[in-house]
Amino acid sequence: MATTPRIRMTRKPGAQLSAGDFALEQCEVPSPGPGQVLVRPRYFSLDPYLVGMMRGWQGPDPRWGDGIVVGRFVGEVVESGDPRFSPGDKIKGESGWQALDCVAADGLEAITPIPGVSDSVHLSILGTSGLTAWVGINRVLALRAGETLTISSAAGMVGGIAGQLAKKIGARVVGIAGGPDKCRGVVEELGFDACVDHRAADLQGELAAVTGSGIDAHFENVGARTLDPVLALMRDAGRVALCGLIAHYQDNDPITFAHFRRVLMGALTIRGFRLFDFTEDYAQAHAELAAMVGIGEITLRETITDGLEQAPRAFLDMLAGKGSGKHILRV
Amino acid sequence: MATTPRIRMTRKPGAQLSAGDFALEQCEVPSPGPGQVLVRPRYFSLDPYLVGMMRGWQGPDPRWGDGIVVGRFVGEVVESGDPRFSPGDKIKGESGWQALDCVAADGLEAITPIPGVSDSVHLSILGTSGLTAWVGINRVLALRAGETLTISSAAGMVGGIAGQLAKKIGARVVGIAGGPDKCRGVVEELGFDACVDHRAADLQGELAAVTGSGIDAHFENVGARTLDPVLALMRDAGRVALCGLIAHYQDNDPITFAHFRRVLMGALTIRGFRLFDFTEDYAQAHAELAAMVGIGEITLRETITDGLEQAPRAFLDMLAGKGSGKHILRV
Repeated sequence: MATTPRIRMTRKPGAQLSAGDFALEQCEVPSPGPGQVLVRPRYFSLDPYLVGMMRGWQGPDPRWGDGIVVGRFVGEVVESGDPRFSPGDKIKGESGWQALDCVAADGLEAITPIPGVSDSVHLSILGTSGLTAWVGINRVLALRAGETLTISSAAGMVGGIAGQLAKKIGARVVGIAGGPDKCRGVVEELGFDACVDHRAADLQGELAAVTGSGIDAHFENVGARTLDPVLALMRDAGRVALCGLIAHYQDNDPITFAHFRRVLMGALTIRGFRLFDFTEDYAQAHAELAAMVGIGEITLRETITDGLEQAPRAFLDMLAGKGSGKHILRV
Repeated sequence: MATTPRIRMTRKPGAQLSAGDFALEQCEVPSPGPGQVLVRPRYFSLDPYLVGMMRGWQGPDPRWGDGIVVGRFVGEVVESGDPRFSPGDKIKGESGWQALDCVAADGLEAITPIPGVSDSVHLSILGTSGLTAWVGINRVLALRAGETLTISSAAGMVGGIAGQLAKKIGARVVGIAGGPDKCRGVVEELGFDACVDHRAADLQGELAAVTGSGIDAHFENVGARTLDPVLALMRDAGRVALCGLIAHYQDNDPITFAHFRRVLMGALTIRGFRLFDFTEDYAQAHAELAAMVGIGEITLRETITDGLEQAPRAFLDMLAGKGSGKHILRV
């Protein structure tokens, strides 16, 4: 039986996740039985949702037993016990944070590499982030040319893709992001029309200055700190796609709005959405996103960390807001 | 020139509207010129929105100058300067709170009396309250048979009509109202399946007990006190029609929700709506409501006060929550 390095959690994390919660160790990897595939991950996706799994919030997933961390990856097939996959196939799926893993074939999906583009794009623009952005812009907001769209967490993966999709549709796109560096990147690298720092003392005033006659549609990833001033500035019949409330996940405190009355007075719509309610749109969304990636029409900065042993540090950096765009661990 | 009694405001009201803000006086009424009609109101509608006009919140309406109170009425034509109307025609429109008034013909609408039903129904079920309820149930919520609907201010006009429309569609309908008497009336007179007192210490628990497997749709007239527990109990993909926020009109305080996260987690939709955005539906809504009224399929308790001189007291009683259903002044 082959051995391989892996990252494992050595204890249940406390209030703050820390590097000491993880250790690098050698483990054994069985040969794949029927329906199983031995995979070599090349890129791991470092995502906030993993914190919840690490804390055991999300209920039992047997793969997570004994401190194993299961992440999304892109890589290749080493050995296959399933007729759908052959050695050398490029695939994406979930595996332990390890150099080799034996996983169920049913959880794997073949990917089509795009010439000149890192396969890691299948973890962001061509993964759930891209699909989520596409669904939010095209299905939940049904954005139209000429409309003014605001996006919170614009320097994040979903926000950054959503903004580029919106620009292609012909909307005016204003981001909200944390700090002048992120704001500059959102405008200069992602092509947003403007970006406002959410730390601004008068966020509503700064948003008003760059959105002019009002906001038609809003893509919310953060919480009341950004949603509230947007509500105040929305045009009548404005729509909010509520994609995330990342500022409100760590507590159960009530959420307060100074401008909730505007939902009534302006006949606004706030709609929460979850990607898995839109499976019928995946094929179209993936095809459109892949075409855009192929001609360089959509891009996303990646923060890449090399080496499996760096996974805990890279993951904590991502949580702390260091770097920008998509956080990737390259094995 | 004829003289007629009228109610006039003698001063700008203070923090609390009071009977001393009004006086009964005699005024002169001109004969109608071209495009004008002399009308005799029979029923005046006593509505909360008038407070805003009385306080001068809503911007200048020249008819409200000099303390005149302009209310919605049903009555008849006495003398007409417009070819569309003849003496004796039954009409509805707006006039001063007076026994005779000369008004613009353009603001009047002929009504078709319904045998055996008071013409005042044209101020409630066949007026804006009925249209608002119809639009909320059929267009905003698109309610379906078998769904569970909750309605706040269920003993109010809009809520009471909305619940009856929902019952006809085949929904299970749970009201929220203030106090045991109102709750009893909502169930026994309006035919709701259940009604919960919004003053209950554990409103969410009481709602949970009568909504069983969750709430599919909600018709909100009040504010966070009722909306918040409903959000907690909504089924995935639940819809909220936000029709009013009466608890939040008198101040500009922030509005707080303990369960706003549920909008995201449950993929809920909160949609504010205003009747005047649905003019294309008025004809269908009116026809359906009139047919239901004609066969006694929909009803609404009226609190009727007789005598123009009683208008201030009746209006203040309505604001104070005395009586129930539609508040009418009969002249």
